[in-house]
Amino acid sequence: MPVVNDVKLTNFCVDIFKKIGVSEADAKIVADNLVTSDLRGISSHGVARLKRYVDGIKGGIILPNVKPKILKETPVTVAVSGENGLGQPAGFFAMNLAIEKAKKNGLGFATVCNSNHYGIAGYYALMALKHDLIGISLTNSEPLVVPTFSKDMIIGTNPISVAIPAGKERPYVLDMATSVVPRGKFEVYLRQEKPVPLGWAVDQEGLPTTDTKLVIDNMTNTAGGGILPLGGEGELLSGHKGYGLSLLVDILSGVLSGAEFGPYVKSKKRGTKTFVNVGHFFGAVKIENFIELDKFKSTMDSMIQQLKNSQKAKGQSRVYIHGEKEFEKWEEHKKNGLPLNDKVVETLKQLGQELGVPYNL
Amino acid sequence: MPVVNDVKLTNFCVDIFKKIGVSEADAKIVADNLVTSDLRGISSHGVARLKRYVDGIKGGIILPNVKPKILKETPVTVAVSGENGLGQPAGFFAMNLAIEKAKKNGLGFATVCNSNHYGIAGYYALMALKHDLIGISLTNSEPLVVPTFSKDMIIGTNPISVAIPAGKERPYVLDMATSVVPRGKFEVYLRQEKPVPLGWAVDQEGLPTTDTKLVIDNMTNTAGGGILPLGGEGELLSGHKGYGLSLLVDILSGVLSGAEFGPYVKSKKRGTKTFVNVGHFFGAVKIENFIELDKFKSTMDSMIQQLKNSQKAKGQSRVYIHGEKEFEKWEEHKKNGLPLNDKVVETLKQLGQELGVPYNL
Repeated sequence: MPVVNDVKLTNFCVDIFKKIGVSEADAKIVADNLVTSDLRGISSHGVARLKRYVDGIKGGIILPNVKPKILKETPVTVAVSGENGLGQPAGFFAMNLAIEKAKKNGLGFATVCNSNHYGIAGYYALMALKHDLIGISLTNSEPLVVPTFSKDMIIGTNPISVAIPAGKERPYVLDMATSVVPRGKFEVYLRQEKPVPLGWAVDQEGLPTTDTKLVIDNMTNTAGGGILPLGGEGELLSGHKGYGLSLLVDILSGVLSGAEFGPYVKSKKRGTKTFVNVGHFFGAVKIENFIELDKFKSTMDSMIQQLKNSQKAKGQSRVYIHGEKEFEKWEEHKKNGLPLNDKVVETLKQLGQELGVPYNL
Repeated sequence: MPVVNDVKLTNFCVDIFKKIGVSEADAKIVADNLVTSDLRGISSHGVARLKRYVDGIKGGIILPNVKPKILKETPVTVAVSGENGLGQPAGFFAMNLAIEKAKKNGLGFATVCNSNHYGIAGYYALMALKHDLIGISLTNSEPLVVPTFSKDMIIGTNPISVAIPAGKERPYVLDMATSVVPRGKFEVYLRQEKPVPLGWAVDQEGLPTTDTKLVIDNMTNTAGGGILPLGGEGELLSGHKGYGLSLLVDILSGVLSGAEFGPYVKSKKRGTKTFVNVGHFFGAVKIENFIELDKFKSTMDSMIQQLKNSQKAKGQSRVYIHGEKEFEKWEEHKKNGLPLNDKVVETLKQLGQELGVPYNL
């Protein structure tokens, strides 16, 4: 696996975006979002997706050089339109507004409509931490998940991210799809020619299956079945809870923002053009409005230490706090360089060649 | 099963609380909270718990006649102390403040510390609906759940409730423990002498078990093991996500409010007295700050209809929306009376006798 420097990789991505009409400021946001994902070990949402964004812009589905527009605003809320541009600059704009409002007025919540895929949800929640705020980031997404007792793939993997500062300990950073697993995990199992665990997916009849290829084929052809919500099939292990969380994210991101919801989050003719209309939801909460910041942080430290020092299950040596694995990956990659999959490097080189950006990482 | 009238049952509970020093106004809130839970079909949190509240007050752990105190307040946030009184009046007070703030200023968020068990989380989220607001209600709770890779029972079943209005359709009302199942389900399986499904619990070594009695005994004796977070054991089915959601609820309800967290949410000497110090978190969001209310409601209706009309999994005849089963139970019980378990009736009669309140339902 080739190992690259993350700063050089970011600059390469910036240059690619600039070549297809994205402003330097926006290109830097998208590039940072993608490389941050790789640094945090979430390679499914990293530069492996660069080509999809480029294709989206080339195909006219993502507009390269638009400015997010404020539709409604109060001292604590704002509704934004992403104007069918890249999801990352729209998310960055809206989250910064939420942060400014929370700093001034205690709370800040923002919706975004007319947007596109915005990368990892955690990117925006993390932005709140340097202001000692609690950060919230939700988005709806392409329908790949089957509601409890249905067999139609009509809800998204709709992630929830919440970042919360601690004191001496690392912050708590939840960043989770509301499905059992994201689509990428099925592709990993397919490459390894392994059946997926029971509880990840249902077949075209809506019945539990472990047939990896069948599930992927059905997803590709929307032939019925798909990924299960967190909690799995039916109600026995509470799959209806994961389904409920997915709806919650869709309502706040899609319905409240005026974007699309559920099965309609996909590229489709809207007016004279073809857009996706993804929706996001952001929040920022000022801790001092409820409790002294020092007390909050020291209690967070106690909670984290107490969890980490708890007795381990047989065969286990660590209890993790959410975000911890990603912070460790980030440090490791910053120190030793970022390993990139051969196939990903190949795609990057090709993109560079097509667009006249030399790949010298 | 005896069937009773819910209004008479509420009055009976009010009289019981008044006899032990609770004001009429507070008694009405607690009684309504308990009977609402029974009406909605959640009998585990209904009048079956009346005795526990009475015992709590008699034992000095819950103070019967205190007023919630505002600790910090801004136009959109408020931090409340429940003053070690009943959880329901404190929750009702704080949620109403959140609602008033959201009506005036678009958002309202409230924390509560020094509180006690507040009944079903959904009770407070539902309060937002008649104001056409989105309602949020979270609470931490007694530690019965085991974090991923730990074997210690150190986090709560920490529920999340969010209520969201629709138009012609019934509202969406999520009200879920962040564990796979609540403790009550284990007792049901024990009575039926059935093993629990794999994925509900771990034993004293932190390993998966289906031994119902073992799990209950271990929980009672805090001998190790306990209930699993939503997603089950380990990371294969994403138990770490349920664990993360449980922590999120605990941080917002416990740490942000200044209440206890995790293993410390239990009766314990605090100063010269013994209290529990449960924490809650409430929120209200004004829809019109983001989108026209009519458009929101009609999109909610479309979303709900589209889910309900989706193709059913083999063997299934309905896809449910969250809260739907509970609304149907409520209507059925309002029409035909509320069936109460014989054992529960026995306890109510005994309480009535002890406190001089005739049980004539």
